Amino acid sequence: MRTIILKNAPHIAGFSSTAGKMEGDGPLASLFDEIELDPYFGKESWEKAESELMRRTLARALTKARMAENNLDLIFAGDLQQQCAASTFALRGQSAPLFGVYGACSTMAESLALAAMSVNAGYAEVAAAVTSSHFSTAEREFRTPMEYGGQRTPTSQWTVTGSGAVILSRDTGSVRVSAVTPGKIVDAGITDANDMGSAMAPAALDTIMTHLAQTHTAPGDYDLILTGDLGHFGSEILVDLSKREGCDLSAVHNDCGKLVFDREAQDVHSGGSGCGCSASVLCAKILPEMQRGEIKRVLFCATGALLSPVTTMQGESIPSIACAVELTR
Amino acid sequence: MRTIILKNAPHIAGFSSTAGKMEGDGPLASLFDEIELDPYFGKESWEKAESELMRRTLARALTKARMAENNLDLIFAGDLQQQCAASTFALRGQSAPLFGVYGACSTMAESLALAAMSVNAGYAEVAAAVTSSHFSTAEREFRTPMEYGGQRTPTSQWTVTGSGAVILSRDTGSVRVSAVTPGKIVDAGITDANDMGSAMAPAALDTIMTHLAQTHTAPGDYDLILTGDLGHFGSEILVDLSKREGCDLSAVHNDCGKLVFDREAQDVHSGGSGCGCSASVLCAKILPEMQRGEIKRVLFCATGALLSPVTTMQGESIPSIACAVELTR
Repeated sequence: MRTIILKNAPHIAGFSSTAGKMEGDGPLASLFDEIELDPYFGKESWEKAESELMRRTLARALTKARMAENNLDLIFAGDLQQQCAASTFALRGQSAPLFGVYGACSTMAESLALAAMSVNAGYAEVAAAVTSSHFSTAEREFRTPMEYGGQRTPTSQWTVTGSGAVILSRDTGSVRVSAVTPGKIVDAGITDANDMGSAMAPAALDTIMTHLAQTHTAPGDYDLILTGDLGHFGSEILVDLSKREGCDLSAVHNDCGKLVFDREAQDVHSGGSGCGCSASVLCAKILPEMQRGEIKRVLFCATGALLSPVTTMQGESIPSIACAVELTR
Repeated sequence: MRTIILKNAPHIAGFSSTAGKMEGDGPLASLFDEIELDPYFGKESWEKAESELMRRTLARALTKARMAENNLDLIFAGDLQQQCAASTFALRGQSAPLFGVYGACSTMAESLALAAMSVNAGYAEVAAAVTSSHFSTAEREFRTPMEYGGQRTPTSQWTVTGSGAVILSRDTGSVRVSAVTPGKIVDAGITDANDMGSAMAPAALDTIMTHLAQTHTAPGDYDLILTGDLGHFGSEILVDLSKREGCDLSAVHNDCGKLVFDREAQDVHSGGSGCGCSASVLCAKILPEMQRGEIKRVLFCATGALLSPVTTMQGESIPSIACAVELTR
């Protein structure tokens, strides 16, 4: 069975979010633990800024969980930079061992899944899942120099400057991770790197439908089915596809890429993206709502477009993946 | 405890290796399952060649394990390309879900560790660990254009064109994975990207000493303590450091970067490197020796230099990591 039921359902002991200025101007402004107005985070490059962003977020999540760094047994982390350098440089000083992961913008769900699987199996008493993205490092990595100022297409998404960290433990915290459905690669043949929502929607559909079938649940059993970074266009496609499957998600679906920015007031076209988008939205908005009991069962399904600048230049299509984590209160 | 004991000790049901022409001219020539003389593997770019290399290796490992693709429950895979694109494009057609991982040249040990942890916990009945590297994609990614023909320093290593895949199951196969010690990041302050052995040796020392201490074993309890890709210089440093710790590894230590090439006959300076180096050496030489009972207890400790071209250009030092997997017969 693809869906993995976590019998011990690890608890979320703490979590934190950090966001940049543009995210701090958006609808979630009052919900982030910290909004940093300096895109350099006090460092001398955007890459170092992103590492500082992740470092602060993990440290704050530990504090909120009333833990110290040496309570951590395992860290799962990843980001969008070449060779996941934001994570490895952020975590240089940590005493806990690291499993580096990469799932593009699905990385927070992948990290959270593996951390929960490790705590569930007794491999760790306390494990962290943390991811980040930074608008300027992603532009440098995937697109054109910032100074070029290229026009964006309507389907393009805006990489979130943000990070989210979740601390899992065996017994502390009201929200638990009860199941995981790992993602398989789905390639719908989309070759436009400015239309990642269309590329990722079929992968999200595959994972969500598998999760529902294997857990014998229907969309109505969830308070929220939250995809990561399909954006406005990709979300419409997902809902359309779900109707064609006879399993309409429209009543319970939302998307982190839609939630993080104000489409009318902010010039972000199809919405937010990046490993830090779903991570920061989860930690700023969703987990607090679950803690307060406003929502009780959430399927968090982050999506990733597994392209690289080289594969795009070589004319390849965009393999996509979506990893789902079921959160219950 | 950092070392994770796998009580059900998953079995290695099958494995395979593939190598390029230069590796096929080296001392392990007769041991690889396939040597491909065409650096393009019949494809139109080096990047696509690396994906084909990984695809073939995983397919052959499944065949050798007498399994079909649809027997696989989970795949753990990674490589050195930007956004781990060799893996994601190699695995596009797979029906099994993927957890993408990144640990630089330690990725095979990381993949094998997570796959074994998943089978041990019952999350998968059959899981695969597969990694690759390709000399030309790594040169393009990390160094200078191939046509530039830059001189190499004596401490530099040669990226292996190769791949290794291991299929883990609950009950089939004489070699088992009995314990895992995940790596923590160690930064010795080395800034020379052409001297990764010096950067990685302290990380290898940390993981090996932790594994020995937490399993109450001594170097003499192992037939082989095999590091991945420290090369000739890094291996000397590791042995020196181990002596200073009062725990001399010299009698049982070897290194995949030393084994894969002939230092005298092949112009490779400090030896081999790359995610495919330790993976192909493990699957071509070590696992067959274990299957035949020639060696019975091996600590496979692959090492990774967590640098990127951007961090090197920004003058950063090289954070390193080493993940250890204990193999027993």
